[in-house]
Amino acid sequence: MTSPRPKDPAFARRVRDSFDRQAAMRLIGCEMTAIEPGFCRLELPFRPDLTQQHGFFHGGITGMIADSAAGYAAFSLFPADATVLTVEYKLNFLSPGQGERLVAEARVVKPGRTLCIVDMEVFAVRSGQRHLIARGLETLMCFENRADSAAGFKKD
Amino acid sequence: MTSPRPKDPAFARRVRDSFDRQAAMRLIGCEMTAIEPGFCRLELPFRPDLTQQHGFFHGGITGMIADSAAGYAAFSLFPADATVLTVEYKLNFLSPGQGERLVAEARVVKPGRTLCIVDMEVFAVRSGQRHLIARGLETLMCFENRADSAAGFKKD
Amino acid sequence: MTSPRPKDPAFARRVRDSFDRQAAMRLIGCEMTAIEPGFCRLELPFRPDLTQQHGFFHGGITGMIADSAAGYAAFSLFPADATVLTVEYKLNFLSPGQGERLVAEARVVKPGRTLCIVDMEVFAVRSGQRHLIARGLETLMCFENRADSAAGFKKD
Amino acid sequence: MTSPRPKDPAFARRVRDSFDRQAAMRLIGCEMTAIEPGFCRLELPFRPDLTQQHGFFHGGITGMIADSAAGYAAFSLFPADATVLTVEYKLNFLSPGQGERLVAEARVVKPGRTLCIVDMEVFAVRSGQRHLIARGLETLMCFENRADSAAGFKKD
Repeated sequence: MTSPRPKDPAFARRVRDSFDRQAAMRLIGCEMTAIEPGFCRLELPFRPDLTQQHGFFHGGITGMIADSAAGYAAFSLFPADATVLTVEYKLNFLSPGQGERLVAEARVVKPGRTLCIVDMEVFAVRSGQRHLIARGLETLMCFENRADSAAGFKKD
Repeated sequence: MTSPRPKDPAFARRVRDSFDRQAAMRLIGCEMTAIEPGFCRLELPFRPDLTQQHGFFHGGITGMIADSAAGYAAFSLFPADATVLTVEYKLNFLSPGQGERLVAEARVVKPGRTLCIVDMEVFAVRSGQRHLIARGLETLMCFENRADSAAGFKKD
Repeated sequence: MTSPRPKDPAFARRVRDSFDRQAAMRLIGCEMTAIEPGFCRLELPFRPDLTQQHGFFHGGITGMIADSAAGYAAFSLFPADATVLTVEYKLNFLSPGQGERLVAEARVVKPGRTLCIVDMEVFAVRSGQRHLIARGLETLMCFENRADSAAGFKKD
Repeated sequence: MTSPRPKDPAFARRVRDSFDRQAAMRLIGCEMTAIEPGFCRLELPFRPDLTQQHGFFHGGITGMIADSAAGYAAFSLFPADATVLTVEYKLNFLSPGQGERLVAEARVVKPGRTLCIVDMEVFAVRSGQRHLIARGLETLMCFENRADSAAGFKKD
């Protein structure tokens, strides 16, 4: 699959600025380690306060970074004056989130003017090796002429 | 719809014990405000560190409490010696997560010996009024003869 | 939940005309037995050629009528000059499709100008009693200024 | 990804026997053109009676063959005395089903003793070229000690 062309050449800075404004990503300690046209990778080091009752990464945390990675994979292809909203996603959990870090990777499968469909995978890294722990699909919507900030946002 | 019969009469204490061991729920400040056979309600007061780039509740946070509520709605019907794993879920986002608190409600649609299907809804409370912001379906699996704790858990 | 207002007062005739042009619905013998603003019911009598290997209704047939019911529930709320496209759906199968007929009911949860979210349920009727066999959620998109016919349709 | 090992060496014949008993697949003219351990391909030539109101393949037909391909990809890995049930699936529609045939391909992502997660893609072939029109994920369940036939099946 060839990489789709971004509509905004400065997409990487725009994506990173938006990510940096997501307080919830700071709260859990999530980092963006790759952003390309139609592709995003987020990484999350293990912390005891991110776990469920078995001491592994909480499934909700897994879903949270999968969803965010998908959002920024789509956002990377949008015009400079647009914002992104998640329409829906579906996530299958394949194995427990056991490891020293999680890695979420999202890739646009179908870029559209209005809707964007994104594949997402989450891996747990144990002893340096990736294990696929979740796989999903997300649908996102592009809203043009709306700055990607609190002031610019108006609800549907 | 009549309430399903719990297999464990002490289900409420077992659910609350498990919830209290979820560090990730403490991190975000989530509270369990109702647990009945096949039904669970979680509530989450607004905090600036739970937001996305527009200043609303982060969609990942919405997903996180929806998923947890569904897990405990299912867990309430399981035998005393069982644990619960999320197989998958799907969530549609209907409106931005704007409000002073989120409320996630989950109800078992189909209790099975092995699998349990759960409806979930998330509301944003604004000026005391509930607004439906997300709706989804989750599939959970019951593992018998495994304590719901780190020691008792073995992966598939 | 109050019924949403249709934008086209002649919605019922427009929906039935569109349904009547769906050759695949005729092939399987599906009938539309109710259409209201934001709600649609389809019914499908049992036929041996609609079965899977156990002699019950094929799951793909169950999905087919759930999807169609959702599409027309959404379409009933659209303007007169619009057509409808399915963005995605998710369906949980709760019980085998065993019975003398299937009934699919779909109800709009969130009507939007562009996207419409629809709840869907499928029942198997056995000895005159309804049994819930599938439950799902579907996202649909409204395309304005496109006739709902082969000639008017242009792809994204 | 390496191919998973089938538990039943005669899996291909068992899969084809089961497929041949699906009357609904005969009704629409669907053919199985490949079966490997954890992989299945179905093909469906265009017929006017498989269409929706725009004259393209009906989305329900697309879903039907995606679901069936996923079921047989999973079934190929099951023991000889087991049957398969669809737990749920989610399908995104990316483009209209316009072409001289549909091709559905399903591949097991995670084989488990009880549950099996399968990726599925549907292509429309136009002038001999494949175009991806749908993408999804399906969860299936293995029931051991039940013949894959009407007589052997008992519901949950």
